Amino acid sequence: MTDPVASEKLSDRDKKHLWHPLTQHKTHPEMLAISSAKGALLFDESGKEYIDGISSWYTCMYGHCHPYILKKVGEQMQRLDQVVFSGFTHEPAVKLSEALIKILPGNQQKLFFSDNGSTATEIGIKMALQYHFNQGEKRKVLLAFEEGFHGDTFGAMSVSGLSVYNGPFEDFFISVERIPVPTEENIARIFVELKQRLAKNDIAGFIYEPLVQGAAAMKMHNADGLGQILSLLKTHNVLTIADEVMTGFGKTGRYFASDHIAVKPDIICLSKALTAGLVPMGLTTCTEKVYEAFYSDEIAKGLFHGHTYTANPLACTTALAALELLQTEEIQNNIQNIKQWHKDFDLKIKDHPKVAETRQLGVIYALDLNVKMERYGNLRDKLFNHFMENGVFLRPLGNTIYILAPFITSKEQMERIYETIQSALEIV
Amino acid sequence: MTDPVASEKLSDRDKKHLWHPLTQHKTHPEMLAISSAKGALLFDESGKEYIDGISSWYTCMYGHCHPYILKKVGEQMQRLDQVVFSGFTHEPAVKLSEALIKILPGNQQKLFFSDNGSTATEIGIKMALQYHFNQGEKRKVLLAFEEGFHGDTFGAMSVSGLSVYNGPFEDFFISVERIPVPTEENIARIFVELKQRLAKNDIAGFIYEPLVQGAAAMKMHNADGLGQILSLLKTHNVLTIADEVMTGFGKTGRYFASDHIAVKPDIICLSKALTAGLVPMGLTTCTEKVYEAFYSDEIAKGLFHGHTYTANPLACTTALAALELLQTEEIQNNIQNIKQWHKDFDLKIKDHPKVAETRQLGVIYALDLNVKMERYGNLRDKLFNHFMENGVFLRPLGNTIYILAPFITSKEQMERIYETIQSALEIV
Repeated sequence: MTDPVASEKLSDRDKKHLWHPLTQHKTHPEMLAISSAKGALLFDESGKEYIDGISSWYTCMYGHCHPYILKKVGEQMQRLDQVVFSGFTHEPAVKLSEALIKILPGNQQKLFFSDNGSTATEIGIKMALQYHFNQGEKRKVLLAFEEGFHGDTFGAMSVSGLSVYNGPFEDFFISVERIPVPTEENIARIFVELKQRLAKNDIAGFIYEPLVQGAAAMKMHNADGLGQILSLLKTHNVLTIADEVMTGFGKTGRYFASDHIAVKPDIICLSKALTAGLVPMGLTTCTEKVYEAFYSDEIAKGLFHGHTYTANPLACTTALAALELLQTEEIQNNIQNIKQWHKDFDLKIKDHPKVAETRQLGVIYALDLNVKMERYGNLRDKLFNHFMENGVFLRPLGNTIYILAPFITSKEQMERIYETIQSALEIV
Repeated sequence: MTDPVASEKLSDRDKKHLWHPLTQHKTHPEMLAISSAKGALLFDESGKEYIDGISSWYTCMYGHCHPYILKKVGEQMQRLDQVVFSGFTHEPAVKLSEALIKILPGNQQKLFFSDNGSTATEIGIKMALQYHFNQGEKRKVLLAFEEGFHGDTFGAMSVSGLSVYNGPFEDFFISVERIPVPTEENIARIFVELKQRLAKNDIAGFIYEPLVQGAAAMKMHNADGLGQILSLLKTHNVLTIADEVMTGFGKTGRYFASDHIAVKPDIICLSKALTAGLVPMGLTTCTEKVYEAFYSDEIAKGLFHGHTYTANPLACTTALAALELLQTEEIQNNIQNIKQWHKDFDLKIKDHPKVAETRQLGVIYALDLNVKMERYGNLRDKLFNHFMENGVFLRPLGNTIYILAPFITSKEQMERIYETIQSALEIV
């Protein structure tokens, strides 16, 4: 006798009770069931393989189910799973803090853990607001880039310029003002307007995705221009908050996108590749100056924020193992290889009549089609389906196709991604 | 040659770079390093053991490092660690959804995953606001209990009446109105005032911790009164959001606190014991009616919320294994045992001159001292230190001492907790 439930396909069982993120279920009812993953590959229920061309949303940069990470986490979970992180500490958190401090920009001194990218940015925002509040300064406006994306909780939504559908919520947002990302053309004007604006002394902090705006379809901007903006803000004591949730941990060719910029942020938000695609964790780091504003005999000046699983020992162990991998010669060499393969591919494709623009930073490669497409439209779905049929998982954002494959992707796998993109140009 | 760093104590190494949650580091500089945990016990660096009397913030209800959970998670992490949950699904999420639906209140039909309790309540709030918005109704006020606590992100902070230090942030909160928790004395008045208030038709949802307000020091209220309030709100199409992050999964003696109340919520928020103290996960469940309001040919009517690690396969596997344990005869019997032990202890202690009030629901037991104490004051610290010296981890909230030990706590271990509380009464 067969079990009627177990014999049903997972993608059908999925429909009964699961509500998926960022999904209109009526127009997109089908979820593909993934059974396993290894290295750069995902495998579906029928055994078909797909190259994970976006590293499962930029997380599993060392490949899925990496044996070294699994070994370390397997050992840790026999020892200590979880303990309250108020009043207590543990070795995985301490070791991770020491390892992170070695590679973070030199001005970063303190680490505040949470559970995902949204909470990491919420904490960065709270640090900036309370930093001024604790010193008796009334600064209640945040500055952010146009088309920035920082997460989906109310604080994070507030600072996100790129929020696809915020209608029901925007009455409740933090006061935010926006500036465009810097270009050679607009930087002089941004500078003049910002100087005037700063005279009001009410801006608490500036949150920005350094160099690459991920959700805005991997839009890239100028490191010099950004450095000049940060420098100006610092002279007005506006705390600078680098949201490196997407850019962190080697993807830009350096450990952090902030490493490309002369002026270092006061606060950095991290997640995604921090835990290498195994379990969720968020992290907000800051300078001694920020921390000092909360260090007081007055209890109320502390940061009274906390999530139950803060600094979860398994997540810390994962992150520590991932950091060790990131610093190996093998991974660093492969980052260089991928950069070069992308450059070679770009030479071949950038003048194609269907290609409007290409751009690259580190292992992040993006191309815009000169075809009009809606972010969640039919042509976008046609592209997505073409990639999947050819065994490549890429997730076009409107008319932008981008690659952010794991650091361990082989040359053959990357060639398959390139070929599939080339063949996609013939069907749009 | 010894490594100078490794020979240093963990609690000293902790001080260099770790910023702990809910902590004023100047007045509370010392963190105790926990090295391992097993069952109901935590072990520190020196090998001293502590009974985990609050289950590491109500998470590890089946004991730390449970071998069945570790076995299941160990197998899963060899197979599939992570995959994007937009457009994809996987067996751990599907199986977990089927298992949860079997024990959730019968009206719950759809499950939306996230990463912690704060995000679970943010999603509940967004569901309530957008539910009305999608139907063209302008309802933008939320109702909440006085002294409720729902998390630390901006949306969750907004609805929390009990927020110790919200000064720097409260300008940016959602519009919230509060009602007291029901008592036999005030229920008639609450009813009259609420009826008047509801006539304005602007209340989108009501968020509440059913029966026990955790952070308010395990304050308990009346199931009948709450049922009447929920019933009234439903007739006015106000969505009811039960925050069961603390109360969920057997702690009240039934699977959910909502099981004690005749009127079932539209939305339920879960976390903490959901993943049994192994890794973080949040979950927001809802009725078909709520889901239907988002199901449309218009893409914009979907819920465009999503976290990268949504429905993480390891977290789902953990939760599924935990649910299996919860439904075993062994755990169900032990819940009954603990309820009885608490009752017996209560008879012994409730008339003690230092005890103002005691209360119990399921395995949750609380007593208020008739001694004035600040939430983060010296006397509270003296109590905490007394417990720890005696090998019991309890975390007094002001002058409230409460027990929420794992379901697998033995009679001897529970006796040690009781004796330590009794001896504490002599020092306050």
